[in-house]
Amino acid sequence: MKPVSLLFTAIGVSAACLVLPAPGALAAEMSLADAYAVIATKPKVDLTHSFGVDTPVWEGFGQATMSAASDPVTHRPYTIAEDGFRTIFYSLVGQYGTHVDPPAHFDPDGTTMDNIPLDQMILPLVVLDDTKYLADDPAHAFSVADLAAWEKEHGPVPAGAFAALRTDMYKDWDTNPERFKRHPFPAWSLDVIKLLFEERHVTAIGHEALDTDITDTMESETWLLRNGHYQIEVMANLDQVPETGAVIVVTWPKVENGFGFPARAFAILP
Amino acid sequence: MKPVSLLFTAIGVSAACLVLPAPGALAAEMSLADAYAVIATKPKVDLTHSFGVDTPVWEGFGQATMSAASDPVTHRPYTIAEDGFRTIFYSLVGQYGTHVDPPAHFDPDGTTMDNIPLDQMILPLVVLDDTKYLADDPAHAFSVADLAAWEKEHGPVPAGAFAALRTDMYKDWDTNPERFKRHPFPAWSLDVIKLLFEERHVTAIGHEALDTDITDTMESETWLLRNGHYQIEVMANLDQVPETGAVIVVTWPKVENGFGFPARAFAILP
Repeated sequence: MKPVSLLFTAIGVSAACLVLPAPGALAAEMSLADAYAVIATKPKVDLTHSFGVDTPVWEGFGQATMSAASDPVTHRPYTIAEDGFRTIFYSLVGQYGTHVDPPAHFDPDGTTMDNIPLDQMILPLVVLDDTKYLADDPAHAFSVADLAAWEKEHGPVPAGAFAALRTDMYKDWDTNPERFKRHPFPAWSLDVIKLLFEERHVTAIGHEALDTDITDTMESETWLLRNGHYQIEVMANLDQVPETGAVIVVTWPKVENGFGFPARAFAILP
Repeated sequence: MKPVSLLFTAIGVSAACLVLPAPGALAAEMSLADAYAVIATKPKVDLTHSFGVDTPVWEGFGQATMSAASDPVTHRPYTIAEDGFRTIFYSLVGQYGTHVDPPAHFDPDGTTMDNIPLDQMILPLVVLDDTKYLADDPAHAFSVADLAAWEKEHGPVPAGAFAALRTDMYKDWDTNPERFKRHPFPAWSLDVIKLLFEERHVTAIGHEALDTDITDTMESETWLLRNGHYQIEVMANLDQVPETGAVIVVTWPKVENGFGFPARAFAILP
């Protein structure tokens, strides 16, 4: 009798089939078509707010304006009835709505948003839950101890992940924009930001608030942007994503030498 | 001796391992983690132009402006030296740079860009090559006959695909913007657009030019947008993507009730 492995080879069974596959173990056998077929069937959750002229924004920037785009000669707004089309002329700060902050936002020598690699736009997603601390501390800064408790339950945050902080404050975006803009607000501690990037080697972080730190100190935001990392601010719907196992797709328009712009993020659920 | 299938079952080999898998056939065995592991190793090609204030744009819209964002009270521009950060204030038409046209751009009752489903943002990508016709006809409209020739070589355009038209005119974007804006230009014929959506059931189309039709007739653009489909204009680097087998990731910021905005598109190569 032939050894089992040779028998398998003879009928076209590859070595990867000889063991019960661990997550990711089938990858060597898989084509991009296989991967697409999996992704196409999975539920997806939008992690992006819609934005308009009344959208909450940091008071130091001010609201966007939107008007009907017009003919530059006649100044007549284009209409579907007269021109066959209509569109919008926008005036806005880059840090508007759900947006990307590239390193260059805080670092004179930092990477601009057009130079962040495409490989940083599809990442394993972990969701760190700050909500359990908010009853006692409504502006809780997610701490190293909180991360330790999370990792005891879910395992270490994997290298290369996108670490998002769930606070549920996103629910105020549409219904209570003044409360959304409260100070202080639930966000990150500097120590956990350093640990996530330096020891866990995450690729990027994101949060629901307009800023990284619970107050205007900007210490976490300054540290991460000046150390070459990007972040996504004003995320939504993180309560609809499991704490591990999802994948985030996170992209933004390609502003040449840009310091920030509205972005799009969504989760593919496991 | 046990039948081979029982032998396999006894050592944990699943039925899917008994046949040489066709593309996509492993999907039922695969997790999202497997799919991510495949995607993470694949080369990616950006299909998006960087845009700035000198970027080619339709003459009926005009150039974007970008300035340093300022304090709304003092009007002093924010600087890293004084404020710890800097950012940009943008004024631009939605149809600027590589951008999305949702149905509402041409259809008063059409879907706005915030309501296009996430499932339409990751799609199989086919690249239709118009360049072989351009020596004889520099503003060739890709035709039904051209598609028939393409399908004879590559098989039918699959349902649910994103069909992109390669013309190589994107190469003029940075180096010869006046030539980029030429009229007429290589683009689509109405008949092939109808065939792609009505018979092949593609999800969306894209092209390198500022418009869908080779002239200002807008007949293809009007037809597709008024029939509920979206398109991506001003794409780049389609010559660096195979004609079949890649996957496109194509997203845009979530402007509430938006009629168009800069987008991001990239290809994952097989």
